[in-house]
Amino acid sequence: MKEFAKAVLGFQEPVTKALQNTILTMPQSVQKIAEYALLSGGKRLRPCLTLIWYNMLKGANPIQHSTLSIYDSAIVLEMFHVASLLHDDVLDDADLRRGKESAHIKFGIRPCLLAGDALLATGNKLMAEFQNVALMSVISDALLKTANGEIEEIELAGKVPSHEQEYLSVIEGKTAWIIRSACLVGAIMAGASKEDQEKAANYGLNLGMAFQIVDDALDFSDESIIGKPAGGDLRERKCTPPIFMYLQSLTKEEQQEFIEKFSVLPSPIFEHQKQEKIGFTEQELAEITQKIIQAKYPEKTRELASKYLQKAEESLHDFTGQNKELLLEALEYVRSRNK
Amino acid sequence: MKEFAKAVLGFQEPVTKALQNTILTMPQSVQKIAEYALLSGGKRLRPCLTLIWYNMLKGANPIQHSTLSIYDSAIVLEMFHVASLLHDDVLDDADLRRGKESAHIKFGIRPCLLAGDALLATGNKLMAEFQNVALMSVISDALLKTANGEIEEIELAGKVPSHEQEYLSVIEGKTAWIIRSACLVGAIMAGASKEDQEKAANYGLNLGMAFQIVDDALDFSDESIIGKPAGGDLRERKCTPPIFMYLQSLTKEEQQEFIEKFSVLPSPIFEHQKQEKIGFTEQELAEITQKIIQAKYPEKTRELASKYLQKAEESLHDFTGQNKELLLEALEYVRSRNK
Repeated sequence: MKEFAKAVLGFQEPVTKALQNTILTMPQSVQKIAEYALLSGGKRLRPCLTLIWYNMLKGANPIQHSTLSIYDSAIVLEMFHVASLLHDDVLDDADLRRGKESAHIKFGIRPCLLAGDALLATGNKLMAEFQNVALMSVISDALLKTANGEIEEIELAGKVPSHEQEYLSVIEGKTAWIIRSACLVGAIMAGASKEDQEKAANYGLNLGMAFQIVDDALDFSDESIIGKPAGGDLRERKCTPPIFMYLQSLTKEEQQEFIEKFSVLPSPIFEHQKQEKIGFTEQELAEITQKIIQAKYPEKTRELASKYLQKAEESLHDFTGQNKELLLEALEYVRSRNK
Repeated sequence: MKEFAKAVLGFQEPVTKALQNTILTMPQSVQKIAEYALLSGGKRLRPCLTLIWYNMLKGANPIQHSTLSIYDSAIVLEMFHVASLLHDDVLDDADLRRGKESAHIKFGIRPCLLAGDALLATGNKLMAEFQNVALMSVISDALLKTANGEIEEIELAGKVPSHEQEYLSVIEGKTAWIIRSACLVGAIMAGASKEDQEKAANYGLNLGMAFQIVDDALDFSDESIIGKPAGGDLRERKCTPPIFMYLQSLTKEEQQEFIEKFSVLPSPIFEHQKQEKIGFTEQELAEITQKIIQAKYPEKTRELASKYLQKAEESLHDFTGQNKELLLEALEYVRSRNK
């Protein structure tokens, strides 16, 4: 793990610099919001993945640009990621993000929506500067997957997925696709073969799936660890694996009661989500959260993530060297992360 | 004018069909909003301009695609335009759009924001399918200009522009750039030379500037004509030409009072816009609106638009034939439109 942490640390300065330069091209009113959201902490996993894949696959014909560098390509998906967080926070009305005040509480809802729009547009434009069809294809896919993933997640809120695939499809759009895209951008920038590009994409997709599944496990950790109250997904009626496992442990009658209360959203967004029924009380939410933790469903959820980490590892099979080691360590980082 | 109206009418069916097909690819929850916003009236000026420029310049090597047609490329900027209207309505909290209930009143604020995001992402992806760097460059520029134009307009609200350029820069981003992009897409799809592409872009930019200037004149028309109360820009503190002309007609003292009240926004978005002072009363707003109409400042604003229509006409100098006639008629349509 030590080498991965060192590599991540080494990338921080040039990545931060590229982010700062890009923020300066944005309209003045939203620069502060972009800074707050982009420059305050976070490991910048996405840019790091782009850079490691680029370094591993860099061949005779990398994509070059007279004024932009690989770091500029590496920040685009981080910008998309942060833009989606800004819009998410507004939609979820979350008060905390990474343990600090959410941007929309600090700056207001409408400025954050505008800042999110500007980040998406600025990132998209930055990537277009490389004048490469393959890169633009990755970026337009990522934009679409993220926008639709957000909507599908909201559509599914309050519902118990009838099939695992519904949950997996949501986390693919919500998290995994951007991580996949980050790895793929590194491979394309490196001038890698189609075959190697596909391996980068597969690695990223599976790492991203595991990342979100671990995240859904971590949602049932103590507030002092994750910087927000435990059981947030239960409150927002997102039926993640720990909640699904709890549901499975109930009797048929209890299940029916649970499903009925689960369907009442604290803050419905679409018309069909509005309900007259009564949802969980605060006490019930706290009790269910405790039961989920005691039954070790978060730990069992992590086991689910292992399947994806295994697949990600298989994508690295044909590679060797120091960068492969870093990508293997990244898998361990996701497997064992506890905040 | 007759031929242009006939051409516009002829384009409606294939354009509607392309829009319907694309809407079906969007997540179900936002399809109704997209339909409401995209398929209920409007002349579809932007797609029509793409199609006329395409027809005029179509040469030996137009851009082709195995499953998509020119109509698919023509709807992308209409989708961007409608997405920006959806986000605008939410930000402005406008109740009416083209005389009917705004989408966010009918469907809710958050669904409309999500629908706007999805329209932008879907349009962007649709254009990326053509796998053409020049098209993607137009599209990424349009996305950026529109996002930033929206922010710059809000930044300028409550302020009297110190220079005409500030107003012109806002309307360029808000309206003209998308119309420019629509013409340019037609030229690129046609396989036109760089020189002809530039003429299409210039025509569109100037037509778009004129379009918005006429729109700002029309804002002081009767509610029965424009489908919303007269003087909306005054209420929203957007210092358009008719308002600027009125300000110029005041004494120094009156100007000072006007500027102070004008700076108080009914609904400030950014922190620096919040004020303790007292703004215009309803009666004052109605009186100023009447004075602007009586002084014929809307008509004088239309004269300003003529300069841009003249420039647009010059861009057509080297062309001949039926499509040129349509583009000339489009200028007359913008010049004389009264709703």
